[in-house]
Amino acid sequence: MSKVINIERAMLRISPYVHYTPVLTNSSLNNLTESSLFFKCENFQRSGSFKIRGATNAILQLSKSELDKGVITVSSGNHGAALSMALSLMGGTAKVIMPKNTPKVKVDNVIRNGGKIIWCEPNYKSREEILKKVLKDTGSIIVHPYNDLKIVEGQGTVALELIEKCKDLDIIISPVSGGGLLSGVLCFISEINKKIKVYGAEPIEADDTHRSILYGKIQKNKTTNTICDGLRAQVGTITFPIIKEKVSDILTVSEEDIISSMRLIWERMKIIVEPSCSITLAAILKNKNIFKGKKVGLILSGGNVDLNQMPWKVN
Amino acid sequence: MSKVINIERAMLRISPYVHYTPVLTNSSLNNLTESSLFFKCENFQRSGSFKIRGATNAILQLSKSELDKGVITVSSGNHGAALSMALSLMGGTAKVIMPKNTPKVKVDNVIRNGGKIIWCEPNYKSREEILKKVLKDTGSIIVHPYNDLKIVEGQGTVALELIEKCKDLDIIISPVSGGGLLSGVLCFISEINKKIKVYGAEPIEADDTHRSILYGKIQKNKTTNTICDGLRAQVGTITFPIIKEKVSDILTVSEEDIISSMRLIWERMKIIVEPSCSITLAAILKNKNIFKGKKVGLILSGGNVDLNQMPWKVN
Repeated sequence: MSKVINIERAMLRISPYVHYTPVLTNSSLNNLTESSLFFKCENFQRSGSFKIRGATNAILQLSKSELDKGVITVSSGNHGAALSMALSLMGGTAKVIMPKNTPKVKVDNVIRNGGKIIWCEPNYKSREEILKKVLKDTGSIIVHPYNDLKIVEGQGTVALELIEKCKDLDIIISPVSGGGLLSGVLCFISEINKKIKVYGAEPIEADDTHRSILYGKIQKNKTTNTICDGLRAQVGTITFPIIKEKVSDILTVSEEDIISSMRLIWERMKIIVEPSCSITLAAILKNKNIFKGKKVGLILSGGNVDLNQMPWKVN
Repeated sequence: MSKVINIERAMLRISPYVHYTPVLTNSSLNNLTESSLFFKCENFQRSGSFKIRGATNAILQLSKSELDKGVITVSSGNHGAALSMALSLMGGTAKVIMPKNTPKVKVDNVIRNGGKIIWCEPNYKSREEILKKVLKDTGSIIVHPYNDLKIVEGQGTVALELIEKCKDLDIIISPVSGGGLLSGVLCFISEINKKIKVYGAEPIEADDTHRSILYGKIQKNKTTNTICDGLRAQVGTITFPIIKEKVSDILTVSEEDIISSMRLIWERMKIIVEPSCSITLAAILKNKNIFKGKKVGLILSGGNVDLNQMPWKVN
């Protein structure tokens, strides 16, 4: 793996284009979890999520002739916005296939970053059909949101920055959806310090990775009925083997716990995070046996929330 | 003034007890305002606002016998929470007189920090009557939220930290209510660099300071019908003379503009701020003639928002 995935090199490649995001702590949440939490704030990242890292890493490795053919992706939003921004920096325009039920804030994000949206129905079949057609018609290059080693490599830079700031972590916990972020984190951590355990956090309502680990091979999502619109993807054929080999466990979390942890982060830390990453705090609160007394890095992967749709009661 | 107000000394006094808060920038808001904005994030401060600075500075200068008599204050919330926290650190309990219509999140904040609440009606008369009675019955020491030079001195440390990070600001803009924060900032800035202009931002719906400057003497608030629950106080007899002498201007802002600037900060910066401080961004957006092309420090004074009450439409 080390020859294909080189996260230090990816960091050098992308660092002029991405933010070095802060690591925050909060004594009130430390008390609540009885552990020491280190929040890696990718909600403050350019384009509003960590996705700019992988997208930039992939785009920077395309040739001029490849860029000229155009770049396309499928995305529930954050990757689409990130790819749009990465391409804008190079004078290009990303084509982004998005499901019609994507939250408005993520649609706006793609448009603001110069992407062109191509709509599909909110299901896998429609998305793949439209993708095939566009690829055939235009010869565009596809940059997949997660099932691509250049993406994995780019996302792994989150762990590199986190470890630079917090050298003595016991555990890192990351959300898992398609697996790009989690497998990137795993690749980096397994090379530098095998003592650090890495956990994934996944909604019970979209628990394909949890079950895939359980059965030893990729299982399909039975539902994607989760508030975490960033965690509805299917774990990838490239990311799953990495996760299977290296992850300590995938912890699953209920919708109720995801929402209350999101509120807790907003209230106590005064920062805006998506439910798709508050899930990491929820997993810690529900599994104190694992985390108690430990130094834990949590990856707050994004902050693109539709402020017209709160998951709690508003008067 | 320099003999009474010594902000460097206050900084040394309180620094073991308060956070050194970050200064954030945001390219999207720079583009929108056509200026360079430096946000001093007191929403990340202990107790959720800058008020801990003044409260700590005052409490640390009380004698043992004064502390033993008990400490009381009147507060719409943030000062009450801050005083409660400052006293808790010394094993004491603050008594906090609060209006019955105070947002729940601020009430909870006082209780969480160990304060004891004494309720009053939401008007000046009721508050003062109850205060007099408690002072008479208990002999408590009052720590006023703003009309006290030790409070002014403590709040001025916000400007000291801001200037340490951003030496070449052209302008600083601060919210103004009772005037503790604004006069503290003015005392510090007028001593270190008279070239830096300092503006106050105030709701049109509670514009006593704006009119007081206009008429050269303290005017009463005609309404306090503003969403900014932190900006409903009456400018003080101690703070007003400082403001009158040193401020460049007090800019007034409509409720609509306050709300939309709050939303803009939440969406673009991914941080939670009160309307009482988003007012500074609103003032900049409405007065581009003053701020265009300038380096501007904005004091984001607090982040204690009731998440069950959004000032925009939520589905």
